Amino acid sequence: MPGRAPNKRRLGVDERRAELLELGLELFAAASYETLSIDAIARAAGISKGLLYHYFPSKRDYYTATVRLAADRLLNATLEATESDELPPLELLQRGLSAYLDFVERHGQTYATLLRTGIGTDPEILTVIEGTRDAFVDRLAERLGLGHEGQGPLLRLALRGWVGFVEVTSLSWLSENTISREVLAELMSETLVATLSAASLKSPQVTDLLTPDSSIE
Amino acid sequence: MPGRAPNKRRLGVDERRAELLELGLELFAAASYETLSIDAIARAAGISKGLLYHYFPSKRDYYTATVRLAADRLLNATLEATESDELPPLELLQRGLSAYLDFVERHGQTYATLLRTGIGTDPEILTVIEGTRDAFVDRLAERLGLGHEGQGPLLRLALRGWVGFVEVTSLSWLSENTISREVLAELMSETLVATLSAASLKSPQVTDLLTPDSSIE
Repeated sequence: MPGRAPNKRRLGVDERRAELLELGLELFAAASYETLSIDAIARAAGISKGLLYHYFPSKRDYYTATVRLAADRLLNATLEATESDELPPLELLQRGLSAYLDFVERHGQTYATLLRTGIGTDPEILTVIEGTRDAFVDRLAERLGLGHEGQGPLLRLALRGWVGFVEVTSLSWLSENTISREVLAELMSETLVATLSAASLKSPQVTDLLTPDSSIE
Repeated sequence: MPGRAPNKRRLGVDERRAELLELGLELFAAASYETLSIDAIARAAGISKGLLYHYFPSKRDYYTATVRLAADRLLNATLEATESDELPPLELLQRGLSAYLDFVERHGQTYATLLRTGIGTDPEILTVIEGTRDAFVDRLAERLGLGHEGQGPLLRLALRGWVGFVEVTSLSWLSENTISREVLAELMSETLVATLSAASLKSPQVTDLLTPDSSIE
């Protein structure tokens, strides 16, 4: 079914895909991958199954694309909050965490879906999850001014582990809601400073960066 | 196909299930849930598909049972290493981490399967993963002598987040192997002490427990 006017048609396809992905975020947040059938998705979208397959060749493709969209949104939300060359690292960290927890609060089910997903060892979904962690690690290393040290394997592992800390505590916070958002954000930022301290015992140059008003030598 | 001698037959069923679960650990570590067919599992086990269904009603049941077995083994391995009433908390922590990393090293693929699993938001698999984290949190609170404070929501969240830290750094370590096992174990234990310190700023009674030779008042 190729169209005659590729540019116009192409735009239509992209727009429709975007709409379907928005819908996917809602659908997969409310029902699990396995229980949600292609029929149910097509019905919710008000289109035929055949047309749905035109946009996404399989349910898995559709699912992977929605997970990728959720990951992009989370990354963008925190990116916007931390775009500044003037603020000190710890201030940027607090802004980033605030934007992160905003996302968790507003899109709780989508966030849980993103992180609890995985679909076995599905390589594409793993790539999205690991890629999101990598992106956070890169950005943390840059925004916190870790400079060259931020490229070292130990610090990267510590930052990555901290992203895991943030993920697990956010998921627990979402489902249990036993402490305030402010206390959670403080726990996260203090744990980051602390784990970087622990890592810096093995790479001393970092220690300087951990005191709020220090500048990089 | 009910047997006439239920006791004997019952034993046989349990043994056969146990054998099949051992096989499952290998199979699911080597291939993803989706790509591994019931036919391939039955072939690998040397039994008919019908007989396999006799032990596990579905591929999902089989998979869930192998994930549960992997989780039990991980918990047991670390439990044995930390059964002592005499050693100080930090010594127990180091022993527990050493046993944990032994498991990660020896059963890398199984460990990765356990944690990267999830199968979407499959509730049973989630229950295993969350239950394993809960078990670690309970045990940490007890072995570290956090006593009554260890029941508080903030400390539990911090401990749970640290389990996430351990999971994510272990997975990265497995796939990248950029730092030594000893340095990883140190990073983990120092981060735990640090995150408990951070949490204790909000619940002061805990601070006492973090210095190696302190005793509980």
